[in-house]
Amino acid sequence: MAKLLILSGHADKYRRLLETAELPELEIVTATNATEAEAVGLDCDVVLGEPKLVQPILMKLKNLRWAQSMYAGVEQFLDPSLRRDYVLTNARGVFGDLMSEYVFGYLLNHERRVFERYRAQQERRWDSSATGMLRGKTIGLLGVGSIGAVIAKIAKHFGMTVRGYTRSSEDCSDVDVYYHGSDLLEFAKDLDYLVSVLPNTSETRRIVDASLLDVLPTRAIFINVGRGGAVDESALIHALESKQIAGAVLDVFDQEPLPKEHPFWTTPNLLLTFHTSAPSLPEDIVRIFIENYQRYLRGDELKYRVDFERGY
Amino acid sequence: MAKLLILSGHADKYRRLLETAELPELEIVTATNATEAEAVGLDCDVVLGEPKLVQPILMKLKNLRWAQSMYAGVEQFLDPSLRRDYVLTNARGVFGDLMSEYVFGYLLNHERRVFERYRAQQERRWDSSATGMLRGKTIGLLGVGSIGAVIAKIAKHFGMTVRGYTRSSEDCSDVDVYYHGSDLLEFAKDLDYLVSVLPNTSETRRIVDASLLDVLPTRAIFINVGRGGAVDESALIHALESKQIAGAVLDVFDQEPLPKEHPFWTTPNLLLTFHTSAPSLPEDIVRIFIENYQRYLRGDELKYRVDFERGY
Repeated sequence: MAKLLILSGHADKYRRLLETAELPELEIVTATNATEAEAVGLDCDVVLGEPKLVQPILMKLKNLRWAQSMYAGVEQFLDPSLRRDYVLTNARGVFGDLMSEYVFGYLLNHERRVFERYRAQQERRWDSSATGMLRGKTIGLLGVGSIGAVIAKIAKHFGMTVRGYTRSSEDCSDVDVYYHGSDLLEFAKDLDYLVSVLPNTSETRRIVDASLLDVLPTRAIFINVGRGGAVDESALIHALESKQIAGAVLDVFDQEPLPKEHPFWTTPNLLLTFHTSAPSLPEDIVRIFIENYQRYLRGDELKYRVDFERGY
Repeated sequence: MAKLLILSGHADKYRRLLETAELPELEIVTATNATEAEAVGLDCDVVLGEPKLVQPILMKLKNLRWAQSMYAGVEQFLDPSLRRDYVLTNARGVFGDLMSEYVFGYLLNHERRVFERYRAQQERRWDSSATGMLRGKTIGLLGVGSIGAVIAKIAKHFGMTVRGYTRSSEDCSDVDVYYHGSDLLEFAKDLDYLVSVLPNTSETRRIVDASLLDVLPTRAIFINVGRGGAVDESALIHALESKQIAGAVLDVFDQEPLPKEHPFWTTPNLLLTFHTSAPSLPEDIVRIFIENYQRYLRGDELKYRVDFERGY
């Protein structure tokens, strides 16, 4: 018999979905915060939870064998001072669809000049000037995992050229050209759109810095749907204020929620969203958990296992 | 030797592109309006032009054998009082990419709540409420020609269900279910998005009327990138004001430019653009003309020939 602790603001929804699945040999307890979790679940051997809620009790879970993160980002588990005597798996393969909707939504918003057209409407002005288009443009993906692969595929369907910057992998056939390591500035040269889907690791930290933003053309748009840590925020503000690049769209930040006094709120040509590009949908996450739980019961290797050193 | 009259506001650009192609046995004259055309081109046998500019001189072109429209819509040539003793061809196969960018740009703008997020940014408000998504939604296409086929293809890549309403054709494999004739209301039932790409013909006139809008669910969005004549404008205003449907996006209208006093400018949940969803790009149109001119020289049947009775 395994004991599962569900630790999430949506714990009830997760419980209902898992109970419907009638998984064998599983006792389920739920908590919506660390205090509740301490009362009901410190003896669990499996955790399914939001990383920021699991972190405070991680060291107290004496029987922990497996933690399934509800998110893709698992930086809360990676600090070297934390235990690594369990299997950590994250959510993968379920965010690509929603993130690509976000990326293309905002790219098309830019090209089709949606805000400008709306202003014309408010002024009763028939503005038949031409808009831009995705067709023929070049998009550069910082990171081509399961999310980048979906973005690359849709980009090809819109008639775009796709560049990919990865650590080493080259397994997405929708990427036209791959770049690695010190090729970063070569990768960024002449891009129309730069999109980061990078996780927060020591290697990705501040990878979007002044030198990278410098080589982008002035027409370029930068979108970050990965993690805020990959961006030098001051350098980005400078690039936008000095019109080195045409615009940026950020869904993730160094500090979230973004502090009220942060200059991003009013930086020119910057659109903000609030870590909502691809919410973890309980239906998607439960599907991942069920598949992994069946492997867990059989003693098979779990899917989406995180390498603590690599950070994803 | 053929004599070609180019009749367009961009006549110079067309001339340069055609001269570069070095087409054999072709004399080219250009005009940007009907008056100029009368001075230089009434004896032409071929016209390449914007329909609204060609119409006033159509009856005066004594040697006319072939007119290539720069647009897809050719309603200016269809009045039964006008001559039909020449071959009329329109532009096809070049608008699908741009129109699908428009359609998905505005659908994603709606689902991702781009305007709402922008208001939150202006108020320094971290709004992490969930947004909608295209995945799992159902789109209904009024008309599935070359444009509808591109929209259908992209819709499948975003994980959508595609319904198609056509006169009779069923040759697009990305359409999941076809509807015809009196199935119109069945077609519209439970659609998330209704998109019209219909031309202006006697059969499409006011096809989007109160009875059709009535069966759409209250969450539905209507987009018109075809022709304004397909829509009963009063019925649409009523549907939007009474919240029978959630929103509409219109690029085409009964009267263009839209008159200053038209209620559309301020109808709630209506976004307007200004017949710019898919501009005729000279590079695209010239490619069509060159292909057809080579057929013309050989005496072969021309591509994209318009049936004067059917209207497209």
